[in-house]
Amino acid sequence: MERTLVTDTLKKIGQKVLLKGWINTRRDHGKIAFIDLRDRSGIIQTVYTATILEKIKDLHLQDLVAIEGIVKSRPQNLVNKILPTGTVEIEVEKINLLVKAAELPFDMGGPELKVELPTLLDYRSLTLRHPKVLAAFKVQEVILQTFRQTLKEQGFTEISIPTIVATATEGGSELFPIEYFDKKAYLAQSPQFYKQIMVGVFERVFTAAHAYRAEPSVTTRHITEYVGLDAEMGFINDWTEVMNMAELVIKEIFQQVKKSCSYELGLYQITIPKTVNQTPCVKLKEAQEIIFKRTKIDHRDQPDLDPEDEREICRWALEEKGSEIIFITHYPTKKRPMYTHPDPKDPNYTLSFDLIGRGVEWITGSQRINDYHKLVANIKKWGCNPKDFEIPYLQAFKYGLPKEGGFCMGLERITQNILGLTNIREATLFPRDMTRIDVRLSKQQIK
Amino acid sequence: MERTLVTDTLKKIGQKVLLKGWINTRRDHGKIAFIDLRDRSGIIQTVYTATILEKIKDLHLQDLVAIEGIVKSRPQNLVNKILPTGTVEIEVEKINLLVKAAELPFDMGGPELKVELPTLLDYRSLTLRHPKVLAAFKVQEVILQTFRQTLKEQGFTEISIPTIVATATEGGSELFPIEYFDKKAYLAQSPQFYKQIMVGVFERVFTAAHAYRAEPSVTTRHITEYVGLDAEMGFINDWTEVMNMAELVIKEIFQQVKKSCSYELGLYQITIPKTVNQTPCVKLKEAQEIIFKRTKIDHRDQPDLDPEDEREICRWALEEKGSEIIFITHYPTKKRPMYTHPDPKDPNYTLSFDLIGRGVEWITGSQRINDYHKLVANIKKWGCNPKDFEIPYLQAFKYGLPKEGGFCMGLERITQNILGLTNIREATLFPRDMTRIDVRLSKQQIK
Repeated sequence: MERTLVTDTLKKIGQKVLLKGWINTRRDHGKIAFIDLRDRSGIIQTVYTATILEKIKDLHLQDLVAIEGIVKSRPQNLVNKILPTGTVEIEVEKINLLVKAAELPFDMGGPELKVELPTLLDYRSLTLRHPKVLAAFKVQEVILQTFRQTLKEQGFTEISIPTIVATATEGGSELFPIEYFDKKAYLAQSPQFYKQIMVGVFERVFTAAHAYRAEPSVTTRHITEYVGLDAEMGFINDWTEVMNMAELVIKEIFQQVKKSCSYELGLYQITIPKTVNQTPCVKLKEAQEIIFKRTKIDHRDQPDLDPEDEREICRWALEEKGSEIIFITHYPTKKRPMYTHPDPKDPNYTLSFDLIGRGVEWITGSQRINDYHKLVANIKKWGCNPKDFEIPYLQAFKYGLPKEGGFCMGLERITQNILGLTNIREATLFPRDMTRIDVRLSKQQIK
Repeated sequence: MERTLVTDTLKKIGQKVLLKGWINTRRDHGKIAFIDLRDRSGIIQTVYTATILEKIKDLHLQDLVAIEGIVKSRPQNLVNKILPTGTVEIEVEKINLLVKAAELPFDMGGPELKVELPTLLDYRSLTLRHPKVLAAFKVQEVILQTFRQTLKEQGFTEISIPTIVATATEGGSELFPIEYFDKKAYLAQSPQFYKQIMVGVFERVFTAAHAYRAEPSVTTRHITEYVGLDAEMGFINDWTEVMNMAELVIKEIFQQVKKSCSYELGLYQITIPKTVNQTPCVKLKEAQEIIFKRTKIDHRDQPDLDPEDEREICRWALEEKGSEIIFITHYPTKKRPMYTHPDPKDPNYTLSFDLIGRGVEWITGSQRINDYHKLVANIKKWGCNPKDFEIPYLQAFKYGLPKEGGFCMGLERITQNILGLTNIREATLFPRDMTRIDVRLSKQQIK
């Protein structure tokens, strides 16, 4: 018999099917027992009575089995409203063990996986199989694919750019050095320079690129290797076009996650952020003024919002504008990278923006300096040597780049933010930090 | 006036349009001059006569300009059949310089970019703008997107896996060490272990992952950082299902490239490989027998095909089966990685396959050992310590993995193979090798 996927049973009521998958949970009630079977499509309840009960006595969670049985409708009062297959169950006639799993080190059966973070990561190849844990990565897939799909429809070209770089140009600190044959090289902190160069080739480009930060601290919002969703666009008339594109992308992500991941959002008991047609947008200075008026806390001389400021401005945006996301613009020149375009009206500020939502940062972007001579001058002003930037970065500007800008967001951060996860590691399949690369590197562990 | 993209002029004959882009070529004939303008959508001929001629006298290639003019149909005898916009041209009324490019170091104007490879790479941010050079990356984008789209339709989940790994497990040599805080880590040679682990979570997974090889040589087919298109699938009945999936993917890639990239294929004067319904498939031993019969060269005792063998078996496949691709299967156990499943009928050989086409390798794949105890035994047999593989790799098998297999192909290799490029660097935006990371690292350079 051909295998049926769990979710396809809904179309086969009354029919005999062959299912294959992992034992996700089991419940024994004397003369009747239940096994929830998990396959790539979902989870289904299978029912054991009479002689077949004997067959499952040695089976435990994560064993791989093949099950033959009849798809039955459940009585109305026994429908499981959370499970997509909750209206049916399988009356099992035959069950075969395919692969025996080792005894589990902790309970994997509940709707929540109740283990501490270090255990969650020590047993990552196992814990990822928990339905709620894996649900985060179904959401992540939708985020990634929607990012690409939306930009593709806007005339962007997808590019593959390298992560090994020759010099520590962009930041300096926080870089991982590589032994590159008899030379030293580095892991890229971002695809920034390459996506800008590629504006000269395809005008509008995007990439989902691995980026690396040698963060010498362990926080709930940082990992050393992450996926940056980066976009860059040329021939803009105005920096707001870049902001509008970022807005389009994030709203499309919200919509697609809502559409495709209702089961997953349900497991996390979360809804996607509320948005409005015209996302609120205030200058940093204006935001600080609003916060001061609301709280009497005066951060009007600060170059950035602190975490509590971010939460407060989000409260304002929701209360006053009905939006759970808000753009903050015009950050000070000294707080932004050297390629950020200054505001012609006040060069102490930049044509830059962050998207803040639910109290945290989601996206950052700006118009860039596209004039070769101005860029060279700015590199010098930042205390760097233009020679270090000549190939391949400055070369692109030397031979003509249009007025351009771009934005980026971390794939794991967006996943974390949408699902309201406490720790970014829960939004990362195999998270790396200074204490862990799969195995523990040190005794210090984040809780 | 709103900007019109070059290819949209075809829908605006007789209308006035505003175009923006780079000067790709210019041709001066006294009282008339032509500028081919390039934007993200393509190239179009713009025509200058009378007073407007004066305006362009200081313009040269790669200058960015805004052009206003009327879209005119070209007379039948002046249609450019290669260019998608070859039936029209722009009668220019106004031209403005947007950004001035520096004087070019070599001629970028011809249909071929006639520079040696070192120059091509020294000026990468410029040379990528040549229409034929950039065409390779439009083809590459289609390859990448078709790989993903095809597998998505087959129930695969896309995953993001890390490239920083803790131990030098998979190969040993050819790894790049990273200074990871006060520890040593490595750049992953492939996503192999992680995609296998993820079979336990999503059954069918794929990833386009950066992979790194510290190849201490400079060849036309190797770079140190490449994009691996990797897929892995569980609950197979038989290893041939993996091979069939690889066949489906590559045929779909051929079809999509043919459909979406006729202009690009035309620039390279190339057609996609011929395929037949049932792709020829022979065991390595059979292939060697065929080659021996055809050429009298006896490689029947060899563990692999050499480059001339690969070309010969491709000749046979084309002549006898009408196919430019062929599967070679059952490679010797000692020539394949330790996780490759042995052939139960003869454990000296494996349930493995390579797809060979036009004389070179395209795809490699196999069924894997999914039994925990057999895998541990094999790791020992390969002279390795299972402890080094415990977390996270063996952990996945310990808790039950189904019968599974997978395949991978290099994105740059597939691009190189389809376009018939001499050097893989022509199929890589910013290629890395032991002599170059954008800038030259040594005097030795590949020609």
